[in-house]
Amino acid sequence: ALHAARPGCQQVALTSERYGLQRLPFAHLTRSDMAFFERLLPGRVITDPEELKQFNVDWLKSVRGCSKLMLKPQTTAEVSQVLRYCYERNLAVNPQGGNTGLVGGSVPVFDEIILSTALMNRIISFDKVSGILVCQAGCILEKLNEYLEQQGFIVPLDLGAKGSCHIGGNVATNAGGLRLLRYGSLRGTVLGLEVVLPDGSALDCLASLRKDNTGYDLKQLFIGSEGTLGVITAVSILCPQKPKAVNLAFLGCQSFANVLETFTTCRAMLGEILSAYEFMDEKCMELVERYLKLSNPVTGSPFYVLIETSGSNSTHDEEKLNNFLEKTMTSGLVTDGTVATDDKKIKACNCTLWSLRERITEALTHDGYVYKYDLSLPVAQLYELVTDMRARLGQGAKNVVGYGHLGDGNLHLNITAESYSHSLLDAIEPFVYEWTARHSGSISAEHGLGFKKKHFIHYSKPSQAILLMQRFKAMLDPKGILNPYKMLPS
Amino acid sequence: ALHAARPGCQQVALTSERYGLQRLPFAHLTRSDMAFFERLLPGRVITDPEELKQFNVDWLKSVRGCSKLMLKPQTTAEVSQVLRYCYERNLAVNPQGGNTGLVGGSVPVFDEIILSTALMNRIISFDKVSGILVCQAGCILEKLNEYLEQQGFIVPLDLGAKGSCHIGGNVATNAGGLRLLRYGSLRGTVLGLEVVLPDGSALDCLASLRKDNTGYDLKQLFIGSEGTLGVITAVSILCPQKPKAVNLAFLGCQSFANVLETFTTCRAMLGEILSAYEFMDEKCMELVERYLKLSNPVTGSPFYVLIETSGSNSTHDEEKLNNFLEKTMTSGLVTDGTVATDDKKIKACNCTLWSLRERITEALTHDGYVYKYDLSLPVAQLYELVTDMRARLGQGAKNVVGYGHLGDGNLHLNITAESYSHSLLDAIEPFVYEWTARHSGSISAEHGLGFKKKHFIHYSKPSQAILLMQRFKAMLDPKGILNPYKMLPS
Repeated sequence: ALHAARPGCQQVALTSERYGLQRLPFAHLTRSDMAFFERLLPGRVITDPEELKQFNVDWLKSVRGCSKLMLKPQTTAEVSQVLRYCYERNLAVNPQGGNTGLVGGSVPVFDEIILSTALMNRIISFDKVSGILVCQAGCILEKLNEYLEQQGFIVPLDLGAKGSCHIGGNVATNAGGLRLLRYGSLRGTVLGLEVVLPDGSALDCLASLRKDNTGYDLKQLFIGSEGTLGVITAVSILCPQKPKAVNLAFLGCQSFANVLETFTTCRAMLGEILSAYEFMDEKCMELVERYLKLSNPVTGSPFYVLIETSGSNSTHDEEKLNNFLEKTMTSGLVTDGTVATDDKKIKACNCTLWSLRERITEALTHDGYVYKYDLSLPVAQLYELVTDMRARLGQGAKNVVGYGHLGDGNLHLNITAESYSHSLLDAIEPFVYEWTARHSGSISAEHGLGFKKKHFIHYSKPSQAILLMQRFKAMLDPKGILNPYKMLPS
Repeated sequence: ALHAARPGCQQVALTSERYGLQRLPFAHLTRSDMAFFERLLPGRVITDPEELKQFNVDWLKSVRGCSKLMLKPQTTAEVSQVLRYCYERNLAVNPQGGNTGLVGGSVPVFDEIILSTALMNRIISFDKVSGILVCQAGCILEKLNEYLEQQGFIVPLDLGAKGSCHIGGNVATNAGGLRLLRYGSLRGTVLGLEVVLPDGSALDCLASLRKDNTGYDLKQLFIGSEGTLGVITAVSILCPQKPKAVNLAFLGCQSFANVLETFTTCRAMLGEILSAYEFMDEKCMELVERYLKLSNPVTGSPFYVLIETSGSNSTHDEEKLNNFLEKTMTSGLVTDGTVATDDKKIKACNCTLWSLRERITEALTHDGYVYKYDLSLPVAQLYELVTDMRARLGQGAKNVVGYGHLGDGNLHLNITAESYSHSLLDAIEPFVYEWTARHSGSISAEHGLGFKKKHFIHYSKPSQAILLMQRFKAMLDPKGILNPYKMLPS
């Protein structure tokens, strides 16, 4: 979905110029470097500036690098050889998956070599008894899910960018998404990783076991390391069975307090079949209707909730859902709603009900420059930040919207304006981070830090922890060639 | 349960003598050290040899150290002060929770100071909306669960040693147990940790957020590090709601192939409500009946299966379970069985049905010296190892039994003999590890490596990974004072 709808109008300033950055003293590419890469990866060395353009700019068109070289290895051995060479030559490298990241972590800041996983898209094995999938890092999430559905399974991860994002990138950024509420985080479902370290050595932790307590769990360090500690080349992941019954309910609530109480009721009454509890405010719906021409089947509410159930028995699931709806409607918690309970309706509704939620990101990009915040907060206070921000910015912003994975305490706060401006940014930051820190929240719930959030890490982590992270980075990447300028403050 | 039934007869050889080990050149305790500790922890410094005895010997009575000092801090600050002092003085330290570990990781090998978490048993907070519990490391698992049940929640972890084990020890060893099938591993449910590093500095990663992608997930390194990288002092953990309906079925199967097919059928028909699938062979049942006088309600089968469902609607759950039982009984997969479906029966049956499975470990200790193996294997081949081992050892062993968490591919292989003997050990090892490695299994699924398994790590991890683990250890604990002689080969 995302790649088709990439925002396309504005010119993007060069990141290094916008932020007045100094390039670190990495080596510059020489003719002999190019000759080496051409020999190693014949036909898979991209130097055409036109072709490189889209890989230098992030999906949001908010940051832009000026890499002159993209490499497309197909095997782990090739990634090893590339990194060993770059490490020796002191050439900086920017690993890149589907380039759908939202914090500027997936594109170069200066002229880093782009190391793309696009051609590493092979499924290595799938075991139907255990549900364990092993595949290369460049497999596209949606393709993996299609493959698994044919075998009666699904990927335990789903997100709006599924049509473009790579599973390796998902793991490298510890992506959360829409199914986390039900299947838990990647830290529990990723069973093994193969990683190439900055010096080119390959680390094989590609086990396919649900339980393995033999030594430190090294793979965890690479999950969520945003390409700064190693390049993930293959993934082993535990996949749940495809649910036999999936139901959707799209509901309107008259207040955020009602959204919260509906959630508590929902968790108690739907229990183990609840697979998503998403909320969005009316501003989100306006934008989705205006820019994407989607129609909202439930109107006139300040808040909307999308509930998904996934279970093994459609009769039981529908009964649970109906009991829940009856209770919340009768009590006035929910004032309007629509339900899709059989498979045919779901298929048809997928394009509407889920799209209403999943395509908000896309709708926002049509509204102008987007300031994006992805915060973990105690659920009870979660929407207050949106209200506070709206009051604070007044006419200074075009739109201030809130939506997200309420079931996980995850708010997506988005602010749009005609174009980027320093003064609006100053009105938003550090206010938003201070607010979050005051409520013991996280300033990045699932998007990561990348380039755009790295200076704010101290709002969520104590200095002792940041120092330790820097020691891990220095130990594994002493020359700092891997995804420089990202994630950790220097 | 475990602490009451601790095996008590045999003399335990001193570990260092049995294995002919050399003490590393740590400092020896002086009078001034003792004075420092007495000042720091008045009344909480144990030096009485009689009192120390049980903390020097593991629960299995398989290894014994000769520590002359146990310290019982109550706060993180005290743990910090102890470690800072020991680090400066080069005194070795053995962190200890409930001392229920099965690989000799929780007791000293020589004269390491025992640092006990027994007095760190305070619940810090519990949030009923999010289900997030924050507590000190010394809280006993069963007590935590009782506390949570009063609030309508449970700990996402359950194991036979629950009556004695500490949550900090559970996290330090990445305990698996009986609920992993349903609630996933601690890597997903532990949200935060507070850890004191070997040099005494405290690392505060005690977040209470389901999602937080701000930097490397440092806490993961300490989960399953078996006390070698830091002392866990507090834990934040996501707790599921207490299921409204719990059902148990105890079934007899005529072959292991039937156990497997019953599992596949079970997973499809019980789906999201399946919370445990345990199996045990008839030898296990014999021992439990003989030594613990428990009666097996289902007899005459070579294999037994214990199935638990946990759900939010008792009518739906019973219907699912009955459909499943009808199908497996009709097809002959299951030949006999008993079911407990209402709460009263479950409470009564808890003492019998679950005990039949949970108390196998205890029954084994009554049978003599126990050689314990805890392996992850592909489910289809899992029981072959038991049969192969039985054939290999013949009369050399008293009993060779197999049981475990089939749903997780986790086999507990146990071999008993009148007493410990080198020759029997040589017949078992490295055969058992080679067999496991040949099937790409793990030589320690959930018990860890501790003292007894550390030399076998290379059967499950490549040398590149072991080297990296050693680098992490050297970075965080350059003097190697924390839980020495454990987990990693030197």
